[in-house]
Amino acid sequence: MLSKFRFLQFSATLFSSASSRQIATFSAKFRPQMEMGSATNNNGKLVFRQLFEKDSSTYTYLLADASHPDKPALLVDPVDKTVDRDLSLVKELGLKLMYAINTHVHADHVTGTGLLKSKAPGVKSIISKASKAKADLFVEPGDRICFGDLFLEVRATPGHTLGCVTYVTEDGPDQPQPRMAFTGDALLIRGCGRTDFQGGSSEQLYNVCSKQIFTLPKDTLVYPAHDYKGFSVSTVGEEMMYNPRLTKDEETFKNIMANLNLSYPKMIDIAVPANMVCGLQDVESKAS
Amino acid sequence: MLSKFRFLQFSATLFSSASSRQIATFSAKFRPQMEMGSATNNNGKLVFRQLFEKDSSTYTYLLADASHPDKPALLVDPVDKTVDRDLSLVKELGLKLMYAINTHVHADHVTGTGLLKSKAPGVKSIISKASKAKADLFVEPGDRICFGDLFLEVRATPGHTLGCVTYVTEDGPDQPQPRMAFTGDALLIRGCGRTDFQGGSSEQLYNVCSKQIFTLPKDTLVYPAHDYKGFSVSTVGEEMMYNPRLTKDEETFKNIMANLNLSYPKMIDIAVPANMVCGLQDVESKAS
Repeated sequence: MLSKFRFLQFSATLFSSASSRQIATFSAKFRPQMEMGSATNNNGKLVFRQLFEKDSSTYTYLLADASHPDKPALLVDPVDKTVDRDLSLVKELGLKLMYAINTHVHADHVTGTGLLKSKAPGVKSIISKASKAKADLFVEPGDRICFGDLFLEVRATPGHTLGCVTYVTEDGPDQPQPRMAFTGDALLIRGCGRTDFQGGSSEQLYNVCSKQIFTLPKDTLVYPAHDYKGFSVSTVGEEMMYNPRLTKDEETFKNIMANLNLSYPKMIDIAVPANMVCGLQDVESKAS
Repeated sequence: MLSKFRFLQFSATLFSSASSRQIATFSAKFRPQMEMGSATNNNGKLVFRQLFEKDSSTYTYLLADASHPDKPALLVDPVDKTVDRDLSLVKELGLKLMYAINTHVHADHVTGTGLLKSKAPGVKSIISKASKAKADLFVEPGDRICFGDLFLEVRATPGHTLGCVTYVTEDGPDQPQPRMAFTGDALLIRGCGRTDFQGGSSEQLYNVCSKQIFTLPKDTLVYPAHDYKGFSVSTVGEEMMYNPRLTKDEETFKNIMANLNLSYPKMIDIAVPANMVCGLQDVESKAS
C-alpha cells in the first residue's frame, strides 16, 4: 500500500547539500542532550513536544528523529509569537530543524514559518499545493515528508479550508506507536473547524473526517492545531464515539455547522494575507 | 530498594469495599473504550492525559491503569473550574476515579478536590501530611500511591511551600518508561516556584531539587503544575542543563529568588484558605 506514496523529493537533497557542514557542527555542540530522552518514548526514536500559544490557543508540534546522527526535526503549525521559544528548544535538544510545516492557511494567527526561515537559514516551509499559498515546498495527498527514518504521510482533509491537510505518522515497526495524526483545524478534540470561510464546506469536512481520519486505527493519537478547553490529545476511537458533531449523520452535521453563528474572526484580515505568503508579509510588502 | 517504601494502606481497602459494585457497572458500560488506546503508550498500561486550565496556567494530570479490569485512575492537581471537563473525560475513557491528589496547597487557584468528591462519591483526596491541610488521606515521603498495578512514589520537595511533594512513577519493567515526575511548583520547566510565602525557602528548594529530583534518571519526564510559556513537558536532564535558576550555585540561586520582586498573588487570600480545607470551603463555612 505504501508503494503508491510519492516521496517528498527534496529531503535527500537537503540532507546532502551545503547545509551538511552546519548540521555536523550543530550535532557535535549539542551531543550531551543525546542522553536526555524524549517526551514520548515511541520506539525510542521520536522526540516529540507539544507547545501552546495562549492568545490563539494554537498547538505547535516539534518532532525529530533522535536515532539519526543529525537529529532532523520539523515543526507543525508554528506561530510567529513563539518562534524564539521554539528555536531555543530546538537548539537545547540538539536538533536540526529542517521543515516548518502548516496544516493550512490559518485565519487566527500568523504562521511562524517566515520568522523561522529568517532566523534559522536552511529551514524550508511546507504547505499543501491545494492551499494556493506560497511556501518553499508543496505537498499533495500521498506524499511523505521524511525526517531521518521517520515520515509524515499527507492526507487531504479539506472542509475547514480548501487546502487543509492532516499529517499522519507512518504505519510500521520502526515508526511511532500508536500512530499520530496532526489534524490541523479539520478534526478538533470533541469538535471540528468552522466551515464558513476560505472555501470551507461542511459536506466536504464530514466526508474527509469519515474517509481520511476515522479510517485510521482507533488508537491513533489525534493532535489538533487548537484546543480551547485545555485538552491536549485525543484518539480516533474517542472522536468516533464522542465527537458531538461528527457522531451525527451528515444532514444533522451540516445543520449544526450552518447554525453556529460564529463571529467574524478578529485576526483573519491580518492572518490570511500573511499566511498566504508563508508569514513573509513584511518582506513581500517591502519588495512591492 | 523498594522495600523501604511504606505502601498507602488505603488502596486495598478501597478496591474491595462497598464501591466495588459501582466499579463493575461502570466498567461494563464503558467497555468499548478498551480498544481506544491511551495518550502515551508506556508499556501499554498507562492512560495519561495532560489537561490545562488557562486562567491560572495550571496542568492537571489524569493517570490510569488500562490493564486493570476496573481501570483505576487518579487526578493530580485538579482545578475547581475544570472539574466537569475532567469528570466527563474520566467517564468517556471508562475509568474509575479513585484519588484526587494535590502536590501542595496552591495559592493561585482553588483545588478541584472538593467538587470532585461531591460529584463523584468515593473519590478520596490526598495531600502531604507536611502541608497541614485537610484531606481524606495524607502521604509522607516514601509512601506509594497505588492505582491498579501502577504506583506513584512520594518525594518531599518543600521550598515553594513547606508541604510540597513530587509524585514519581516507579522504576520497574511494568511501570511507565521513561519515568514521570509530577513536580508541582517545585521544579517548573526552565524555572521553579517562588519561595516568598507559605513557609517557602530558597535554600530548601535548591537542596530538594538537587537531592530528590536531579537524582532521578535523566530521561525522567518532568510534568509541572504550571507553565506560562506553552511548554508541556521537560526532562530531568534538560533541567539540569538548562534551568536558568537551578544550574546556578546555591548562593546565586538564593540571590535570584530573593530579588524576583513578584507581586502579591491575586488569588492567594481565596485559594489558600479553600485549599487548606481540600476545596471544601463552602461546606466548611456552612457547617461553622
